[in-house]
Amino acid sequence: MSISAEIIAVGTELLLGQILNSNAQFLSREFAGLGIDVYRQSTVGDNRGRIAAEVKAAMARADLLVLCGGLGPTEDDCTREGVAEALELPLVLDPVARAQLEEQFAGRPMTANNLRQATAPSGSVILPNPRGTAPGIFIDHGGKLIFLLPGPPRELTHMFTNEVVPILRSRGVIEGSIFSRTLHMAGIGESTLAATIADLIDAQTDPTIALYSRLGEVDVRLTTKAAESQYAKSRIDSLEREIMSRVGEHVFAYDDMTLAGALGTLLREKGHTLSVAESCTGGLIGHMITGEPGSSSYFLGGLTCYSNDAKRELLSVSDRTLKEFGAVSEECAAEMLAGVVCCFGSSVGIAVTGVAGPDGGTERKPVGTVCLAYGSASSHRTVTVHLRGERAAVKERAAKEAMRRLLLWLKEDEPR
Amino acid sequence: MSISAEIIAVGTELLLGQILNSNAQFLSREFAGLGIDVYRQSTVGDNRGRIAAEVKAAMARADLLVLCGGLGPTEDDCTREGVAEALELPLVLDPVARAQLEEQFAGRPMTANNLRQATAPSGSVILPNPRGTAPGIFIDHGGKLIFLLPGPPRELTHMFTNEVVPILRSRGVIEGSIFSRTLHMAGIGESTLAATIADLIDAQTDPTIALYSRLGEVDVRLTTKAAESQYAKSRIDSLEREIMSRVGEHVFAYDDMTLAGALGTLLREKGHTLSVAESCTGGLIGHMITGEPGSSSYFLGGLTCYSNDAKRELLSVSDRTLKEFGAVSEECAAEMLAGVVCCFGSSVGIAVTGVAGPDGGTERKPVGTVCLAYGSASSHRTVTVHLRGERAAVKERAAKEAMRRLLLWLKEDEPR
Repeated sequence: MSISAEIIAVGTELLLGQILNSNAQFLSREFAGLGIDVYRQSTVGDNRGRIAAEVKAAMARADLLVLCGGLGPTEDDCTREGVAEALELPLVLDPVARAQLEEQFAGRPMTANNLRQATAPSGSVILPNPRGTAPGIFIDHGGKLIFLLPGPPRELTHMFTNEVVPILRSRGVIEGSIFSRTLHMAGIGESTLAATIADLIDAQTDPTIALYSRLGEVDVRLTTKAAESQYAKSRIDSLEREIMSRVGEHVFAYDDMTLAGALGTLLREKGHTLSVAESCTGGLIGHMITGEPGSSSYFLGGLTCYSNDAKRELLSVSDRTLKEFGAVSEECAAEMLAGVVCCFGSSVGIAVTGVAGPDGGTERKPVGTVCLAYGSASSHRTVTVHLRGERAAVKERAAKEAMRRLLLWLKEDEPR
Repeated sequence: MSISAEIIAVGTELLLGQILNSNAQFLSREFAGLGIDVYRQSTVGDNRGRIAAEVKAAMARADLLVLCGGLGPTEDDCTREGVAEALELPLVLDPVARAQLEEQFAGRPMTANNLRQATAPSGSVILPNPRGTAPGIFIDHGGKLIFLLPGPPRELTHMFTNEVVPILRSRGVIEGSIFSRTLHMAGIGESTLAATIADLIDAQTDPTIALYSRLGEVDVRLTTKAAESQYAKSRIDSLEREIMSRVGEHVFAYDDMTLAGALGTLLREKGHTLSVAESCTGGLIGHMITGEPGSSSYFLGGLTCYSNDAKRELLSVSDRTLKEFGAVSEECAAEMLAGVVCCFGSSVGIAVTGVAGPDGGTERKPVGTVCLAYGSASSHRTVTVHLRGERAAVKERAAKEAMRRLLLWLKEDEPR
């Protein structure tokens, strides 16, 4: 049974921008994994009339509705009341919820407002909340399934996994499976990628293809619904092969793997150690690489040399190179690479020097000009790239491009 | 004029839970600061019909509509088309947008899909996007104001401040004035801060006090509505003085200033140069410091030494210190500081060594233990802090705490 879901977050603090709506992300991700399509998320304040209007509108479109927040004991919490109004059901005191609440309060004084937490629209099923005082509520309203969950994320996630999912399974809402694979790419823009695989995107039916871009990266997600996992895998494999044949050099990792993680895995596999010489990236490459747990097994360290003096004295870049080619040159990058590999005694290295902007650009070397060197002391490559964006974007793109190039070198060019 | 706003985020990646909807938070927070009420946020996928339906429904309720996302160059980006359908307006190629796009692509190949980014519903005003390729769009539809903004947060925030706010002012939507001042704090948790100024928060009427927390930082925003700026300023000044008397040591900057920016400004004012020795932060401090344009005038560079060998050989940390106190010790941090200041010849420095986790913790030095040294070669301080969170959080909190401590040292402790 394929059904559509909507998520309604309730809370004035969300409308004031005081907190991030992480519940909507959690619920959406869980539903995607369970094969349930979420067509809409919305957020309304703690206002009974607006909650009721939102629920009515959503019920006209969706089969499954999850509301989160507004179940607390204070006056402004009125999700129960709003839902009861929308469904035209009376709110009744639920004996099970009352008993649970009294048990949780054992000894401590309970206010009239606390008791409101034990009310629910007539015909509801109460969902226990071991992590807080507000119980959840489940309503089957003529086949439409409605869940009211508490707002605090640790209460909501626990109740979702332990109460909501079992109910959805018992109703046959969750069945079969969804398979997906994400290809992470760098060194290619979203629009160039889209143009390169336009025919595949146009022809997509099953698997589907979705592109997501981040600064300096593009993700391609291939998704298929299938009853049988072997069949699903072979369909995804075949589409992936076609994409790889066109843009394979840009694919650096799959699914949850990051660029730094993919690079780290390969370095470890090949028994390499790494050091980095940074100028315009200012330490970002080292920061990204050390974001991976266990990176100390291959990352020895880095030298960030912002000034020419430091490049000369600490990385042994020659005076002649700085004068003849300048600090932003492939020649300088190559000497920085040799210098840092020697300093740390690492087997491979990365060196980056460029113009991050907003100042420092010239006609010949405008902002965004970045020279990279990567490889080992005995065998390295250099390249000049032109990156767009402001200072932060140039830094991030440069760091990612340098890491992608070293990854490719390790896969393809490294002397055997 | 008091008006109500709605925010519509567009993007299937939001409905799949792949990204957090930080744009809704940013826009809601900005509107709250400008005195504009947001009654609803919603999220729909990259689907023309559903975007159109959402826009129609929102226009029936609100005076001001902001859509974000879905302006990219790929097939599935169809916010323009959805809005045009809802307003029953044709999409036309805008010559200004086309010229801007061609300028940005100067030299690089432009696809047919890129050109879609230069189309807009007939009668639109094009909003320039210096941070990306997708221009924004403003439509005055019979008095209802509709803005289409790009999805990437750094493009959206820039366009909001530089294009949307001026238009709202020119239309009288933002009037009188709202004065606000944000105090940025570090080294103190949101709940500790809230408890320390609880009486001020409880008594707030005008100015209002709002707390926003980020990783390792808390912002306190003081806002007052007033006709006369001198009066507003004096009210905010007086509340700020009271807050400063309680938690002044934690306040590192105001309004748009970042921690790295505040530190850079002070270093420049005092004629200092800086170098950093990093271990567990892996280059993050250097990265943050070089995020500021012009940082090359005071930042000489950094040495990231992940291994003990590198600490010994490159930073001259003594064998005895490493054996007796270990790499995570104030003694080691102090020697790292002396080493890096000597290497780069800087007048002041920062050194950080700690356990970022998830592995490497011991009973005496659990994950989150971080030792800092800061100051000059002749006068420095050391401290051990215990930071919570996962690897990324420990790194970020450590970097910020080190920078805050050096800032405080420069303000108060530096020998004259």
